[in-house]
Amino acid sequence: MILKNKKWSCLLPFLSLGLLLFPSSTFAAKPITQLESQPVPARPKNIIIMIGDGMGPAYTTAYRYYQDNPDTENIEHTVFDRLLVGMSSTHPTKSEGIVTDSAAAATALSSGIKTYNGAIGINKHKQAVRSIMQLAKQQGMSTGIAVTSQVNHATPAAFLSHNESRRNYDEIALSYLHTDTDVILGGGQQYFSSELIEQFKNKGYQYITDVSELNSLKQAKVLGLFADKELPWAINEKKAHKLSRETQTALTLLSNNPKGFVLLVEGSLIDWAGHSNDIVSAMGEMNEFANAVEVAEQFVRQHPETLLVITADHNTGGLSIGANDVYAWNSALIRGVQSSPDNIAIAALESHDWQDIVSKQLGFKLNEAEINQLAAAKKENQDIFTDEINKIISRRSHTGWTSHGHTGVDVQVFATGPSSALFHGHQDNTDIANNMISLLPTNQNNPNP
Amino acid sequence: MILKNKKWSCLLPFLSLGLLLFPSSTFAAKPITQLESQPVPARPKNIIIMIGDGMGPAYTTAYRYYQDNPDTENIEHTVFDRLLVGMSSTHPTKSEGIVTDSAAAATALSSGIKTYNGAIGINKHKQAVRSIMQLAKQQGMSTGIAVTSQVNHATPAAFLSHNESRRNYDEIALSYLHTDTDVILGGGQQYFSSELIEQFKNKGYQYITDVSELNSLKQAKVLGLFADKELPWAINEKKAHKLSRETQTALTLLSNNPKGFVLLVEGSLIDWAGHSNDIVSAMGEMNEFANAVEVAEQFVRQHPETLLVITADHNTGGLSIGANDVYAWNSALIRGVQSSPDNIAIAALESHDWQDIVSKQLGFKLNEAEINQLAAAKKENQDIFTDEINKIISRRSHTGWTSHGHTGVDVQVFATGPSSALFHGHQDNTDIANNMISLLPTNQNNPNP
Repeated sequence: MILKNKKWSCLLPFLSLGLLLFPSSTFAAKPITQLESQPVPARPKNIIIMIGDGMGPAYTTAYRYYQDNPDTENIEHTVFDRLLVGMSSTHPTKSEGIVTDSAAAATALSSGIKTYNGAIGINKHKQAVRSIMQLAKQQGMSTGIAVTSQVNHATPAAFLSHNESRRNYDEIALSYLHTDTDVILGGGQQYFSSELIEQFKNKGYQYITDVSELNSLKQAKVLGLFADKELPWAINEKKAHKLSRETQTALTLLSNNPKGFVLLVEGSLIDWAGHSNDIVSAMGEMNEFANAVEVAEQFVRQHPETLLVITADHNTGGLSIGANDVYAWNSALIRGVQSSPDNIAIAALESHDWQDIVSKQLGFKLNEAEINQLAAAKKENQDIFTDEINKIISRRSHTGWTSHGHTGVDVQVFATGPSSALFHGHQDNTDIANNMISLLPTNQNNPNP
Repeated sequence: MILKNKKWSCLLPFLSLGLLLFPSSTFAAKPITQLESQPVPARPKNIIIMIGDGMGPAYTTAYRYYQDNPDTENIEHTVFDRLLVGMSSTHPTKSEGIVTDSAAAATALSSGIKTYNGAIGINKHKQAVRSIMQLAKQQGMSTGIAVTSQVNHATPAAFLSHNESRRNYDEIALSYLHTDTDVILGGGQQYFSSELIEQFKNKGYQYITDVSELNSLKQAKVLGLFADKELPWAINEKKAHKLSRETQTALTLLSNNPKGFVLLVEGSLIDWAGHSNDIVSAMGEMNEFANAVEVAEQFVRQHPETLLVITADHNTGGLSIGANDVYAWNSALIRGVQSSPDNIAIAALESHDWQDIVSKQLGFKLNEAEINQLAAAKKENQDIFTDEINKIISRRSHTGWTSHGHTGVDVQVFATGPSSALFHGHQDNTDIANNMISLLPTNQNNPNP
């Protein structure tokens, strides 16, 4: 707490400004005609890449039906529907097989090279490869990351760092000190010692630990760590919109550089929910990510010199909409669950009225078989109890899973803005990076000759 | 057999011509420069729609890795990779939920309207809706279908017929007599009585029952039924390429009409393999369909006034590449299986050396647990034995399934040719139909006002 107080004290000048979440001066809507008449350059000034971690095609499809208004005749489109342009293969380097992890995929997306699973910004010979972030810095552009996992997790790490293993969290956190990244927002306080924070401050970083402080920032650099590790499930903080606020702030701060910027935004926890086969939290994280994509989409409308590219690093869990031979998916049941299954488990295990608590939180009455299933799990531990709640929700909603790991299906690519046509059709994840790199303001951008 | 002999006798004049499978005069390659210099009209003269039944995104992805040459460093692209332009939602009419069957999906793709599962060319009020095939006929165009299921199965039926239930196979077969369809190729002899065949002949149809007869056809009309019900699994007839031959013949015959044509080609049995959770037959059918797509792609190159649109009606089985927490998919094991699991079961159940037969056909030695698993199934019946073989192949290859039915994930859309840009990005399956219909040679094409 002392540390946190210290952090806050240095930010009082900013906090006292009491700015609103989305300052109207920055994102005020312009008339459409004015927007459309602005000349759009072939080469973008700014690049926003957004990654839905684990967000395979079944996630974006499920999200459409999850967020659909049941009272209208049509199925409402999502921001993903509006922006879809193609798909991408995700396999790691061929000797690794065809199912990637987030580290190899993010290295492909940041640097345009295939590598082994676990590799952070290095090739299969364990040589560092230059990322789009480094190349952007060389051109005097600003860079930033805004994520919902710890900031030193595999995806952002592969954009900023080089390490032979994604598991070297402390080394990766330390390495960020030397990247000159202008905006670093997400979770991960446990990986940043007070000494390391001091070193960041000595380099000119503002350090914040609460998303409310985002509003008071007037300029980069900033290191914002809003949780010990990952951020809380979005489903448990329905109005927090933390990734949207991170994204909004990052865009505002990075826009100050007349040479442009490259920003990575990751909906990190979609993947985590997929690993747990937790459809409730997965849809909550999809909503969180979709809202952030809408913030970026709006930025592109108002700053048409900005390219927005959105994709997933891989698919997680083998999610299917409809399962066990039933031709249905009960999105209403999923929408009716009040909080994440792990939170329900915590509440239930602390109470004698656990059946009532679970039923109330789930939004439906447990049947006898389900009560027996959970009673047995209750004798084990919280993780098993959570798993059984997830199984009940999946069974009742006809949600299918084949794995707690990743699968190899192609993922979607969404894009808008200058040169977005480069991302149409089928491509490999390395093509996405190489195309983005080719758009940086130099023609000598071959990162890894 | 008498019936079959009768069928053959009328075709002797054509058979005696002994034409080659792909007459070089029809599809001789033109120099690229010549092809590229041909003016391409904005509105196509011909439309080819190809449907991979059940072919969700995991199928096209799996097929890429299945057909990849393991001796090269890169993963080779498939025809699907070359032609990808977008994705499509597949849900039936909203009151039915979000998981479609083939009948509702094919009605959407043929007529641009949402209906209930099971409906063949009728809306949710059970009123007939006009299909692209009927509209094309009204414009003097030729029409055709080429499939691997029985020709009166749900998908082709929804393009040609109107019936309140897909299960009314006999009614649907009878209705074809009045559609004036120029080319009808697939399986389904059991649904066409000798009397009905006579009626087709009286209408000017040539009737053939063997794919070798396709080469001898000089002109439409033709009814070709090459199996009692569906065609054999492609994996069991590796060099037959029946769907490619059907497609090639249909294109040749339909091209005779100066007013153009609409052709439906369906890789029907991808779905059937998915329902059985049979990855070996699924990949065989994907290869069969991919080859047919390449025939159509080549036709478009040589007849640039042709629009080719390819999609799936829905996803089947909840297929995933990688399963059970393993980050791998063993395509080599799948490629190594010598015939379809149901054929392996038949051979095994007829023999005392069943373990040897199964091992030899699978291409790997069964372990003790697998032998016990199959020995127990052997005491049951052939279907259960087949299921257990499929489970062994899926487990060993890390192939995942969530259902024996359909799932609701969006499917891909592939297109090339004039106005193919209409199919870029996200769309609904009804949009695909309405866009194709809008390209027919009249501006009064609203089929279902």
